[in-house]
Amino acid sequence: MKHLYPTLVLGLALALLMTPSKADSPQGYQLRSPDSALEVELEVRPEGVFYSLSYLHRSVVKPSRLGLKIKGQAPLASALKVDKHREREVDQQWQQPWGEQQSIKEHYRELRLELIETTANPRRLTLVIRAFNDGIGLRYELPDQPHLKKFVIEDELTEFVLAENSHTWWLPAYRNWGPEYQYLKSALSSVDVAFTPITLEARHYALAIHEAALIDYASMTLRLQGDNTKTLKVDLVPWPNGDKVRTSTPMKSPWRSIQIAPKAIDLLNSHLTLNLNEAPTPEALASAERYLKPGKYMGIWWEMHIGEKDWSPGPKQGATTARAKQYIDFAAQHDISGLLIEGWNKGWEGEWWQRPPTFIFNQPVAGLDLDEVVGYGREKGVAVIGHHETAAGVTYYEQQMESAFGYYQKLGIHSVKMGYVGKRIDGEQWHHGQFMVNHFQRLVDTAARHQVMVNAHETVTDTGLRRTYPNLMTRECVRGMEYNGGSPDSGNLPDHTTIIPFTRGLSGPTDFTPGIFNFDYQKHRPNNRVPSTLANQLALYVVIYSPLQMVADLPENYAGHPAFQFIDDVPTDWRESRALEGEIGEYLMVARQDKHSPDWYLGAITNQKARSIRVKLDFLAPNTEYEAQIYRDGKDADWETNPESYDITRQRVNADTELRLDLKPGGGAAIRFKKR
Amino acid sequence: MKHLYPTLVLGLALALLMTPSKADSPQGYQLRSPDSALEVELEVRPEGVFYSLSYLHRSVVKPSRLGLKIKGQAPLASALKVDKHREREVDQQWQQPWGEQQSIKEHYRELRLELIETTANPRRLTLVIRAFNDGIGLRYELPDQPHLKKFVIEDELTEFVLAENSHTWWLPAYRNWGPEYQYLKSALSSVDVAFTPITLEARHYALAIHEAALIDYASMTLRLQGDNTKTLKVDLVPWPNGDKVRTSTPMKSPWRSIQIAPKAIDLLNSHLTLNLNEAPTPEALASAERYLKPGKYMGIWWEMHIGEKDWSPGPKQGATTARAKQYIDFAAQHDISGLLIEGWNKGWEGEWWQRPPTFIFNQPVAGLDLDEVVGYGREKGVAVIGHHETAAGVTYYEQQMESAFGYYQKLGIHSVKMGYVGKRIDGEQWHHGQFMVNHFQRLVDTAARHQVMVNAHETVTDTGLRRTYPNLMTRECVRGMEYNGGSPDSGNLPDHTTIIPFTRGLSGPTDFTPGIFNFDYQKHRPNNRVPSTLANQLALYVVIYSPLQMVADLPENYAGHPAFQFIDDVPTDWRESRALEGEIGEYLMVARQDKHSPDWYLGAITNQKARSIRVKLDFLAPNTEYEAQIYRDGKDADWETNPESYDITRQRVNADTELRLDLKPGGGAAIRFKKR
Repeated sequence: MKHLYPTLVLGLALALLMTPSKADSPQGYQLRSPDSALEVELEVRPEGVFYSLSYLHRSVVKPSRLGLKIKGQAPLASALKVDKHREREVDQQWQQPWGEQQSIKEHYRELRLELIETTANPRRLTLVIRAFNDGIGLRYELPDQPHLKKFVIEDELTEFVLAENSHTWWLPAYRNWGPEYQYLKSALSSVDVAFTPITLEARHYALAIHEAALIDYASMTLRLQGDNTKTLKVDLVPWPNGDKVRTSTPMKSPWRSIQIAPKAIDLLNSHLTLNLNEAPTPEALASAERYLKPGKYMGIWWEMHIGEKDWSPGPKQGATTARAKQYIDFAAQHDISGLLIEGWNKGWEGEWWQRPPTFIFNQPVAGLDLDEVVGYGREKGVAVIGHHETAAGVTYYEQQMESAFGYYQKLGIHSVKMGYVGKRIDGEQWHHGQFMVNHFQRLVDTAARHQVMVNAHETVTDTGLRRTYPNLMTRECVRGMEYNGGSPDSGNLPDHTTIIPFTRGLSGPTDFTPGIFNFDYQKHRPNNRVPSTLANQLALYVVIYSPLQMVADLPENYAGHPAFQFIDDVPTDWRESRALEGEIGEYLMVARQDKHSPDWYLGAITNQKARSIRVKLDFLAPNTEYEAQIYRDGKDADWETNPESYDITRQRVNADTELRLDLKPGGGAAIRFKKR
Repeated sequence: MKHLYPTLVLGLALALLMTPSKADSPQGYQLRSPDSALEVELEVRPEGVFYSLSYLHRSVVKPSRLGLKIKGQAPLASALKVDKHREREVDQQWQQPWGEQQSIKEHYRELRLELIETTANPRRLTLVIRAFNDGIGLRYELPDQPHLKKFVIEDELTEFVLAENSHTWWLPAYRNWGPEYQYLKSALSSVDVAFTPITLEARHYALAIHEAALIDYASMTLRLQGDNTKTLKVDLVPWPNGDKVRTSTPMKSPWRSIQIAPKAIDLLNSHLTLNLNEAPTPEALASAERYLKPGKYMGIWWEMHIGEKDWSPGPKQGATTARAKQYIDFAAQHDISGLLIEGWNKGWEGEWWQRPPTFIFNQPVAGLDLDEVVGYGREKGVAVIGHHETAAGVTYYEQQMESAFGYYQKLGIHSVKMGYVGKRIDGEQWHHGQFMVNHFQRLVDTAARHQVMVNAHETVTDTGLRRTYPNLMTRECVRGMEYNGGSPDSGNLPDHTTIIPFTRGLSGPTDFTPGIFNFDYQKHRPNNRVPSTLANQLALYVVIYSPLQMVADLPENYAGHPAFQFIDDVPTDWRESRALEGEIGEYLMVARQDKHSPDWYLGAITNQKARSIRVKLDFLAPNTEYEAQIYRDGKDADWETNPESYDITRQRVNADTELRLDLKPGGGAAIRFKKR
């Protein structure tokens, strides 16, 4: 990484702007966002603690219960009074070492309510609420205290009693493959139990509910309470015995966050989740600075998905020295800094995802001389990316984790893709429970000690921890491109990529793996297709943010292809990002400025419908001329019948130019604005 | 009913057009629709019997298993061979005594495959497949046979291995309130388990899977097989012990049907479900002719839903003699032939839906003199409509069923609304299992004997049985207008009515209960609203078909209202119906011709988005002048801010006219084309 901006501008606690809301009720509090658009009310009543939220004087969340149920004890939710309350305001600007936006404003007002039970042997519970202009965060803190030491959270009572029955985009939780499904759209009142982020389009605003800073706790899902209601309640992903969180004081829960904006597109320009995470320690940041390097990578991977090659050793083995060198040769000629080699190690024989894991994490498979490949790559400037597929066998993996990372470190490998393919972790744990959250934290820490960037698939959903742990680069946690390959024979619909930036994308970087150029892989996968045009594939590099961005197709399919120039050019680290326009499931247009040049890039995608969109280029620097290098759908392009039809045009533009983009079915447009 | 057309034109079995498909495989058969667009292939292989379906040479259903699992026996699904096959073609036109379309063409080719096991003590299974131009039907017949007498179906193995992962509109099955939820839209591969009809929009066609002629069997739901697949399998709604169907030979299963059309809108013009039901007996038809009478009705009902009145006896009691007379007075001045009085009988005290039923079905509640009300209505030409709310207590109800209908018959009541409000029937049965199917059949038969038309709420989904049982007029089986009232405080979204005609509506008449004129019922229901404009409410009388169509609001809210003229004019019995244009969840435009006049009516509705649509009036008779009486949204109409804004305009039109309709958010247009 060439430029790091580790300077944190610490905000001053400003004048306190909150007051108890009613003179006659000392147990009511209100907290406003800095711009006063959001207002949180807290009420501490004998029967419980309730919060509510309004936005521009409109009720968004009606009084909703807070609290925890502790196993074997009375719920920590009622008979509470305020012992102390503290308020503060923080206004600072901080710099990401890498990211979709270099400089992030963090401006919030905070209310800390220190509660204590009114009963004998009282327990203490602190609520912390932060109100930003783009949403709120709310967490529980349980301080060190005499009457609560080691305990189990049986249920978290946090509710979201929404004021309006809205169109809701959601993914059912507790299915076999985590969030690797296409999204459902329904009325809120038809939701069952959903992963977060969950995105709602109300009449006058859009909102997304999620969590931030998930550490040593279970992931949150949201369950509709009763039938046909508008109330979502936290449903923590359990341990096999039903425990939700095994913990002890002092502890902090993750933040429960509500992002809110006038329209869904604006949710994409919020940094609430990052802002609700802790800054890294200076040591972590300094250490990370040595090896963090956003960039593009290829992989011996897609050829397995389309059935050309196997993960298993044998005649169709993908992971071979010769094949790896072919990839490296191609990557070296382009701006591609990494090569992932799936199936690189011992243990991939047969149906590895159907049995307890047999992987050995420091022994390359026969046929792959990893030392030679790493050396060859180093000569050519292409780094090998490690791969730890665990087949969801975490206990097995942890026994080897230290040596596995040590092995990579010795080889000079600074980037690892994790995999947890399987219906349950260790055959019994959900992928999103506390067990996995804690494993994943150990993994991230271990990786950091060994100077490794993490790209995790089939893991816990992102909650913005990349702020605190800068080596936690990106995750899958989405139904990615691989489903268009071959497993299991039901590809994504063309609208999928117009939904996920508004939902999954709100949680953080997404390793969706774009860049398929060859749409004719029907030999082994006659029933599957990439439901997009080539220009759409290019646009995804801008639309879907990931600091490690895959160049997913085979080198043969890129060689000599004029459109590859865009992939060559497009950066993966940005000074600024702006979601310009879009509707969930319909279309999306995003512009981003390169972190290391004055150039801007724009990606626009549509679902199965053709459409014309106009874009004002007012994001460009004023009084500056750019060359727009436009990769657009050909006149006859159509993802189904003619996906490879595209045109490249160039034109002079400036901030006053308005462009019209004609997107074809499943199509898109990708533009580099190169400063002249 | 003034006109009945009981004449059935019996089709001739035409020349057989089917042949075994492959000379070398005598166990392969194919069946084409009369227009050859649809082609069904049947393969009887040792390991099982499989069907597949193509449409215009495009695979729609890939080879999919057929068969039954019999409790305590080997599955009746494999080791079968064809004993006999018979083919025939039927081409006839039949007349509905009432309906959305007077004359219906029934043209199909049929293949009967009589299968016998190749094992010792062989069992027999007959498959019957019918191919229409608009879809196929497929059923199991189990003839009288020595080795299969009384038995339990443990599972029906019928699969639908769909060729394409499509956008799917579905309702989850096995929730507490049956189909009374708003629809979900997702990829097929994200479906879990769904009620039918389920509607899919593929790239080149739309299809709906449902069943027809559900008698003495369990309702079908469809469960996605495995994760992320395209295979739906029949999942019969079970008895409490897991049995699916308790039966004996000879028996016939309901038809499994696949409707198919170029676009979703065309599905609405199909009569496949009706055509897969039996014609009524001449006696049933002649008997029904005496009392069947489509028409509009009011109800003491909405005032309970909006909290003005109670179902329970007491100070807010809705069912009183005086109130009933007010309704009758209003109805008598308009074309409204019936009055429903909910809460009319003893047993409605308190939270009647939360306890075992206490209703007495032949004793009016104190405060309602039913004899007097019936007599008053008779004088004025308004018939009282009976009401049997069972609170899902079917066994309790059946003890009184005979006397209850006898009581009504004595009073001259010929129409009854049924209710089965409750999470489970008799506390343990699903509303869609065989127990309820059989009860409902007994109910329909009992009603017929007592000359009563049935309008059933919270019952088994329609499967076209109204053809066979003409007194089975209409059903709810949908999340109706009532949810916009007050229970339970989460109203329908504006797009709901643009979805249900494409889904629930395909199964048959829908008692959605339109016609709300007063959008200001916030006194008791501050969080609920009817999400439509007034013109949209009018349009629903055309868009949503029901032979008994409610005029749902209070008489006070209609009195003197110019727009009520449309409700007065609009018929409920039609010569012809044409769904003209629409997209699921977006908008819909339907035209229907009055059965008893040359006049046409048109309804157009939109979701939350305003839109302009153009309509060519080429459905009107040629060379004929009409006055179009247009009820449209006012310029500033908006369901949320100004729902009551509308205009009435008149203009001369003919079949060459093209009208432009500007629909506002949640809006609509309703037109009467009156022949000049």
